Amino acid sequence: MHRTKIAVAEDALGANETIARANREDFDRAGVAVINLMSAPGAGKTTLLERSLGDLDGVRAGVLEGDVQGSLDADRIAALHVPVTQLNTDAGFGGECHLDANMVRSAIPSVPLDELDLLVIENVGNLVCPAEFRVGEDARVMVCSVTEGEDKPLKYPLMFRACELVVINKLDLLPHLEFDLERLLVNLDAVHPEAERMLVSARTGEGVEAWREWLAAVPERVGAPA
Amino acid sequence: MHRTKIAVAEDALGANETIARANREDFDRAGVAVINLMSAPGAGKTTLLERSLGDLDGVRAGVLEGDVQGSLDADRIAALHVPVTQLNTDAGFGGECHLDANMVRSAIPSVPLDELDLLVIENVGNLVCPAEFRVGEDARVMVCSVTEGEDKPLKYPLMFRACELVVINKLDLLPHLEFDLERLLVNLDAVHPEAERMLVSARTGEGVEAWREWLAAVPERVGAPA
Repeated sequence: MHRTKIAVAEDALGANETIARANREDFDRAGVAVINLMSAPGAGKTTLLERSLGDLDGVRAGVLEGDVQGSLDADRIAALHVPVTQLNTDAGFGGECHLDANMVRSAIPSVPLDELDLLVIENVGNLVCPAEFRVGEDARVMVCSVTEGEDKPLKYPLMFRACELVVINKLDLLPHLEFDLERLLVNLDAVHPEAERMLVSARTGEGVEAWREWLAAVPERVGAPA
Repeated sequence: MHRTKIAVAEDALGANETIARANREDFDRAGVAVINLMSAPGAGKTTLLERSLGDLDGVRAGVLEGDVQGSLDADRIAALHVPVTQLNTDAGFGGECHLDANMVRSAIPSVPLDELDLLVIENVGNLVCPAEFRVGEDARVMVCSVTEGEDKPLKYPLMFRACELVVINKLDLLPHLEFDLERLLVNLDAVHPEAERMLVSARTGEGVEAWREWLAAVPERVGAPA
């Protein structure tokens, strides 16, 4: 059974790449830069977006919200008057644990690409499968909360390797945790030394300015000739 | 593509049920009660086990550790002189995001069932897929950290519905969070009103005695005629 399963998975990944490329062409044609934002459940992706998307130095941002069920996060983003499209994954068996290129493809007609410079795709909270499925993005970013422990890069290396930026969130809780930030960074170096990293507290706003600047610079960076 | 994928998934779930029953027969034959312990990454499953497995009122406990990669958690459990078997899921494409019955089946020969009354299977940190795959367990338990936010039962309803006990962890952080415990419980009631719930801090030990008693009572509860 296991061998069969792996074979099916590889076929699915091949199809996924093909569809991701088609998404990418649509995004490029519309001149929209795309971020795939990932994390474990409750790491603070939506709060980070709430803190930053309302004012991106003139960059027009929209969000595609991936959730197994419900529209809680989309409602939070919509309150900022940022265009948001909800994509629920629960049509799969009990709910897909990640977005794939085809799910994103099905949502593209509902995204007002002409009105955007930047689309943030907020993936399902999960540190495994989202890293395996490109959706047509220009950059992958993960949010990692200090409440999750220092060992996560070693336990979920693919996710940490897949992302060019790791946003370390909930810094405000550090005084109340037995958490060794140095050790997290050493563990991150062990699996992805080139990863950019930012220290933030989405709740207090600490460090969020650097994230906002990084995000606002994505369209120009991506649009520039390679 | 989506339809094909769902069909394959349903076949896989059917095969999984068959293998889960075979596991269950092996566990029953050995007189071992089995818990499937699930949570998001970093919710504190291992710390909770560290706090409780060393002294279970004479109940002989062992652990099967599921991780994408590495043996960090298994090493922590082994330090308690509790028998532990490591099961890594990274043979799949980039790492499976859950344990399934076949993975557990492959590990059974390495588990000293004859020396155990209780086996805790610590699943991969993920709030989606682990809930979909029975592995031959008697009871499913999840750990939910207050740092993850109150909305999680609404966003990952299958996981909260699958578990008969929800252990709400990291209570010691409540004074430092904007977290409404009442709202979490209301949300849990909305998806699974019958779920038993426990409030603990695995770090300070608050509430852990109730968990230890619950765990120690599982073999007798399970072994009793229905």
